Amino acid sequence: MSKILILGTVAFDTIETPHGKEERVLGGSASYIGLSASQFDLKTSILSIVGDDFNSSFFNTFKSKNIDVTSIQRVIGEKTFFWSGRYSSNMNERETISTELNVLANFDPQVPKSFKNADILVLGNLAPSNQLSVIKQLTSPTAFVVLDTMNFWMDNCLDDLLQVIKNVDVITINDEEARQLSGETSLSLAAKKIFTMGPSNIVIKKGEHGALLFSGNNRFFVPAFPIERVFDPTGAGDTFLGGFAGYLAKTKNYSFQNMKKAVIYGCLLASFSVEKFGTKGLLNLDKVVINKRMQLFKRLIKDGM
Amino acid sequence: MSKILILGTVAFDTIETPHGKEERVLGGSASYIGLSASQFDLKTSILSIVGDDFNSSFFNTFKSKNIDVTSIQRVIGEKTFFWSGRYSSNMNERETISTELNVLANFDPQVPKSFKNADILVLGNLAPSNQLSVIKQLTSPTAFVVLDTMNFWMDNCLDDLLQVIKNVDVITINDEEARQLSGETSLSLAAKKIFTMGPSNIVIKKGEHGALLFSGNNRFFVPAFPIERVFDPTGAGDTFLGGFAGYLAKTKNYSFQNMKKAVIYGCLLASFSVEKFGTKGLLNLDKVVINKRMQLFKRLIKDGM
Repeated sequence: MSKILILGTVAFDTIETPHGKEERVLGGSASYIGLSASQFDLKTSILSIVGDDFNSSFFNTFKSKNIDVTSIQRVIGEKTFFWSGRYSSNMNERETISTELNVLANFDPQVPKSFKNADILVLGNLAPSNQLSVIKQLTSPTAFVVLDTMNFWMDNCLDDLLQVIKNVDVITINDEEARQLSGETSLSLAAKKIFTMGPSNIVIKKGEHGALLFSGNNRFFVPAFPIERVFDPTGAGDTFLGGFAGYLAKTKNYSFQNMKKAVIYGCLLASFSVEKFGTKGLLNLDKVVINKRMQLFKRLIKDGM
Repeated sequence: MSKILILGTVAFDTIETPHGKEERVLGGSASYIGLSASQFDLKTSILSIVGDDFNSSFFNTFKSKNIDVTSIQRVIGEKTFFWSGRYSSNMNERETISTELNVLANFDPQVPKSFKNADILVLGNLAPSNQLSVIKQLTSPTAFVVLDTMNFWMDNCLDDLLQVIKNVDVITINDEEARQLSGETSLSLAAKKIFTMGPSNIVIKKGEHGALLFSGNNRFFVPAFPIERVFDPTGAGDTFLGGFAGYLAKTKNYSFQNMKKAVIYGCLLASFSVEKFGTKGLLNLDKVVINKRMQLFKRLIKDGM
């Protein structure tokens, strides 16, 4: 069974969308990535940190999905990372109301012995210094490393981030971030520039418009699976990442051909995530439900040529 | 040889993009649709109106592509429809600087005898009253009718527009217009609503994000072909429409399977249009160039499943 190590945040989120408001639900990049990747049969471990307000019921959510939580440090006397935000009526814009780093401010991730030889390392959105530290702790020289990051780190610690980017196999960012990182408007040219920074593979996430995979001279495009009612877009990108990396971990095949399938799985899992608040859309999934939607998805993208 | 009749504007455009400015170049919906459709071997006729400033060199552009221009009325003492606009640095927004209807203000389209039995009627963006008049002049009860329209007509003559929509086989609109017409944010729900207005097929154009085809319970998605340098997005939607309708006219097969191919051809032709100013990207195309890019396009969208 493949081992996947996921670095990222575990958080409480308060989310307001046109469909309602939910307070202090389970969130954070590592939560979405882990719950998404757990749909494949993997040894999954989350490397993160929480406060003492993070109680056993939340840990049990992870455990129920066979996610190893021994590397989620729980710090007594401190609070879990908290984020709250509000979406506009068309869901295309969101306003961050509050970000409280809390316990995350002093996070020094320590890779557990049993995951130093992980097959895949997923670096969820987090400080580049944390990401770099985890890369260095791996003993497996063949670990496949998938990075997610965002504009905040480009604005504030670009040098550290470039060090991380140099050491990963895949970088996943959204279209605006690809433009910012490369200084190019065209996504094709942006990808060319980002290749020179290190990664052999680039996934550009376009939200409701799907995702683009660049790998050498190969390119592949997948649309988002169209959902009738998007309830909460929070974590869609992280869920994509979990599906993408989870499928790669399961198959251990990093060819372009297989990475295309991984991108399709990423989009597929993201479609379940946005249908419910927070991580709820990922909790009651099973292979039957996933495969059923996969058949619909295949029909949507199957060309007639 | 199939007959395709194209109703729309023939115009002079002054266009400013970050890459430069061109004055009074050939433009208008019917020009882009016609030049795009002419890539297929068809009997193509443009039904439009121009002023006496529209000289023979412009007519020759159409003639060189075997487009019948006898139904482009030329009114002495009047001026051709004129549009000028400016694109923002990222090309995602455009500002209309001026719109001079001129000769278009009194347009009363008369379908020529030889095209009353057209296989396909393309209703390019124009007043719904003009579009309805042309539908009524057709004698062929089996003519396949493809409509393009825009938010301006939804705002100003919705009743007329709904009459047109009731009588077409395909409606092509962009994503924002689909939302406006249906009152639904989700494009899936928007399509469901629009089906109840009459058309059996809906194409939602998403610009740089491609196009969605809805046909009964069938859906198909095509990305835009990624271009390194978009020089001028003017006419991309019309060029899409010309490629879409041109392919359908050539094959006379209106199955979902074949309509998928038509959407792919539409996106393919649009990719050539945006690479140069105005209609220039469509003038030097040939089958070799088109087929070469089609191979690249197929690789981009070919899933690995």
